Amino acid sequence: MKLKVKEINFETGNTKDVVLNIKDAQELGQKAGERIFIKNPKSRSLEDKFWTAIIQIDYSNTIVNSGEIGIFLDILREKKSLKNETIVSVKPAEPPDSFKFIQKKIKGLKLSSEEINSIIVDAVSGSLSRIDLTAFITAVSINGMDNEEMTALTLAETRSGEMFYFGMDVYDKHSTGGVPGNKVSLIIVPIVAAVGLTIPKSSTRAITSPSGTADSMEVLAPVAFTPRELNDIVSKENACIIWGGALETAPADNVLIEIERPLHMDPIGLMIPSILTKKLSLGVKKLVLDIPVGDGTKFPSTDKGKQFAYLFKEIASNVGIETECALTLAHQPIGHAVGPALEAREALTLLRDYSAGPNSLIEKATDLAGMILEMSGKAQKGEGQNLAKEVLRSGKAYEKMKNIIEIQGGDPEIKPEDIKIGPYVKEFFANKDGYIVEVNNSIINQIAKTAGCPSSKSSGVEIIKKQGAKIKKGDIVFRVYSHSESKLRKAEKIYNATGGPIRLGGMVIEKV
Amino acid sequence: MKLKVKEINFETGNTKDVVLNIKDAQELGQKAGERIFIKNPKSRSLEDKFWTAIIQIDYSNTIVNSGEIGIFLDILREKKSLKNETIVSVKPAEPPDSFKFIQKKIKGLKLSSEEINSIIVDAVSGSLSRIDLTAFITAVSINGMDNEEMTALTLAETRSGEMFYFGMDVYDKHSTGGVPGNKVSLIIVPIVAAVGLTIPKSSTRAITSPSGTADSMEVLAPVAFTPRELNDIVSKENACIIWGGALETAPADNVLIEIERPLHMDPIGLMIPSILTKKLSLGVKKLVLDIPVGDGTKFPSTDKGKQFAYLFKEIASNVGIETECALTLAHQPIGHAVGPALEAREALTLLRDYSAGPNSLIEKATDLAGMILEMSGKAQKGEGQNLAKEVLRSGKAYEKMKNIIEIQGGDPEIKPEDIKIGPYVKEFFANKDGYIVEVNNSIINQIAKTAGCPSSKSSGVEIIKKQGAKIKKGDIVFRVYSHSESKLRKAEKIYNATGGPIRLGGMVIEKV
Repeated sequence: MKLKVKEINFETGNTKDVVLNIKDAQELGQKAGERIFIKNPKSRSLEDKFWTAIIQIDYSNTIVNSGEIGIFLDILREKKSLKNETIVSVKPAEPPDSFKFIQKKIKGLKLSSEEINSIIVDAVSGSLSRIDLTAFITAVSINGMDNEEMTALTLAETRSGEMFYFGMDVYDKHSTGGVPGNKVSLIIVPIVAAVGLTIPKSSTRAITSPSGTADSMEVLAPVAFTPRELNDIVSKENACIIWGGALETAPADNVLIEIERPLHMDPIGLMIPSILTKKLSLGVKKLVLDIPVGDGTKFPSTDKGKQFAYLFKEIASNVGIETECALTLAHQPIGHAVGPALEAREALTLLRDYSAGPNSLIEKATDLAGMILEMSGKAQKGEGQNLAKEVLRSGKAYEKMKNIIEIQGGDPEIKPEDIKIGPYVKEFFANKDGYIVEVNNSIINQIAKTAGCPSSKSSGVEIIKKQGAKIKKGDIVFRVYSHSESKLRKAEKIYNATGGPIRLGGMVIEKV
Repeated sequence: MKLKVKEINFETGNTKDVVLNIKDAQELGQKAGERIFIKNPKSRSLEDKFWTAIIQIDYSNTIVNSGEIGIFLDILREKKSLKNETIVSVKPAEPPDSFKFIQKKIKGLKLSSEEINSIIVDAVSGSLSRIDLTAFITAVSINGMDNEEMTALTLAETRSGEMFYFGMDVYDKHSTGGVPGNKVSLIIVPIVAAVGLTIPKSSTRAITSPSGTADSMEVLAPVAFTPRELNDIVSKENACIIWGGALETAPADNVLIEIERPLHMDPIGLMIPSILTKKLSLGVKKLVLDIPVGDGTKFPSTDKGKQFAYLFKEIASNVGIETECALTLAHQPIGHAVGPALEAREALTLLRDYSAGPNSLIEKATDLAGMILEMSGKAQKGEGQNLAKEVLRSGKAYEKMKNIIEIQGGDPEIKPEDIKIGPYVKEFFANKDGYIVEVNNSIINQIAKTAGCPSSKSSGVEIIKKQGAKIKKGDIVFRVYSHSESKLRKAEKIYNATGGPIRLGGMVIEKV
């Protein structure tokens, strides 16, 4: 069947579907969600000449009449030879082989490396629909993936995008998340880089939390770079703290994540490959993995965290990444600040002045940095944290951070007081004497996000006193910042409705 | 956040999504696939005033700028108070409770009636996305549904749409499919109606086969009717043979089927409710279910068919439908004709003249019709088929069929020779003497669909001689009709490449 292209001035952002009129679809015998093979005889490039697309159906001649094929901007941008009125020929197409492999996973069968690779290639090319991929992700959630499958998936996702080579010894640190205020990467990267190790830290923006490492770093310097710019940065400073999203690494992983997110799914079988593929794409050889455990994290108990650690180490080793894991406490925020600007300010303050603390940030950051130093041989076993503290205390880490900020296009002389916060602020005070027995992370996150995090960088919260601290009635315990007066009021409402994140009690916790 | 409506001249056909600019989505903290609560303060109807929609994101100001919300035709048609430039206010919304119930099914847990009902209500309203529903369907495929869940799903799907009442005793016949040329409903309905029973037969158009009952009936009379028209037809003739698609019964079932089809999924847990909900919506109280078993059907063995029959009877009984099941042969087509017009012609020929046969059609149709006659008490146990044959032979069934054709708007005097077939025909001949040992259904379907079925009604195939028949070299064995010369040639190619559906052998099948 010959059809005339009609450009549709609409970008779906994630599908490569085309639109047919119901009459033509019936004539072809294809329903919505089925496929057609498209041939553009005038095109010279092979990719533009033949491809398979999933069809949407126009039942009422709204967009395409019979004889037309509607093409979205997503495809028009890719296939330059397609224009309004281009004549293409189409015929029904069967689902690709990868479709059968998804059915296999639904039946609970194990997939071979080739089968997994074929799913990933077709996920990126668009010949598997989002519905197909949702079925795959759900099947993986229910039926799981074994070590060989996760290894194959990691390699397939990595092959789907850009890959970097920064030398034989490349280090990194990653966290499985779930603790507010976890700005440790802003301390760890400059420590590790200051002793001469290569650490190309790429991170995400916040998804469900008030701030991701990329959001906080962006307060100090730009974080979005092309692959070529990244090569420049790392070759000069052997380090970076950037947002991974602009790098074109592992597009397959992004396609899957776009589906997992609205489904609130993050099955282990996809989570491990997702972490590892980003590291592998950046040429990482040795990794320290921070695994927060407890309420609000992915691992409710230390046992679950440990199980995950062993599994992760094995898959990582299969793809050539040596990993050390640290199970960490997650019962309250790291440091006192939550929110992009507040976290950047807290980290910058510590880098400039070790005595400024806070202790929990120093301890966690130097502990993890120390593990990297030990893996590299820069420190003896058991001496890593001491060396990390020394590098931090000496100002060498701060010097390195200034270089990183500068090469990423920020102002290396930026001072904590230059960082814009608020401007609207609300303070909360203790209404009795006592000891802090609980700091509730989920209330902190809720308040910080209501105040505007992460899209407003200057919004956030400060937890003035933390667990175990002795408090007098009238002491300030909590502060909320917002870019908007009305959002500040909403955040205040949540504080009042929940009683706030800080719980006071006497020293006696329980009487038996 | 206040946003200005921008109409998008595009009908998605199956989603109730809205489009936000990436800036506004970030400000709201919502990603693609997440939800917003929309309020249209000017609207007077409650349904138009508040609703929850899933968002798509425009990353490049292609359709909506910041400050605008793109609304598709699907929603504009429903919510009349929405116009270009209407100001609505939006805020982030959590997934509905039904989303949690889907997660529960993914975890393998049993759902309560209320939980299933909530999924179905939200599937129809659009507050569950197609991705959510794909996860649900996949989870049901893997984890199954028990009898109580299937019963609840049947009731929930039925409640989602139009329901009819045609009296206390309403009969029906249904087939689980998989046999080409199965035009038995065109014979059964007039037989059953001729003895005074009520049988409002609604059927589907072909999905994967060359012709559905609705496609064949449409050759004789219109088949698409509104609920009001259907009430008229059945109150006058106590029967009909119509397409179910225009009735607005069980929209929830259609939403699920739109996803199952491209996934090639048809899990028992959804299939049984899907069949029963359509019967229940039409007020059916007693049902005969034809379950073809063998290659090409849903049930590869008699055992599997029987298991299904027992399960079906139980769920049907739970929702108040008494069911008798018949496991039937599926090794070759019923009768000789495959394709809408050819099947209508074969059925009409038999209705007018019992002696015209074919035998396989007479036997299967009267056997199933006889089961209904026995269930109703019109025939004694064991006498149903005889009565059915008598009604057919006497011409009473033909008289009834003429009435049905007339009331549906067709020409009751239509004769078999008036039915347009072809016009392009190709005949195939035996190339040796022998007995027919196999008639291959899947090759028949492939040839018929290539010739143009079901969208071209006049296309199809005739299987002149069937299994067991003695053939001489040069005898005609097969005929292909098409509306298009080029399609006929393609069908011919398939015949030649496969050797055709008719396999000859000596009388001795195997020598040991």
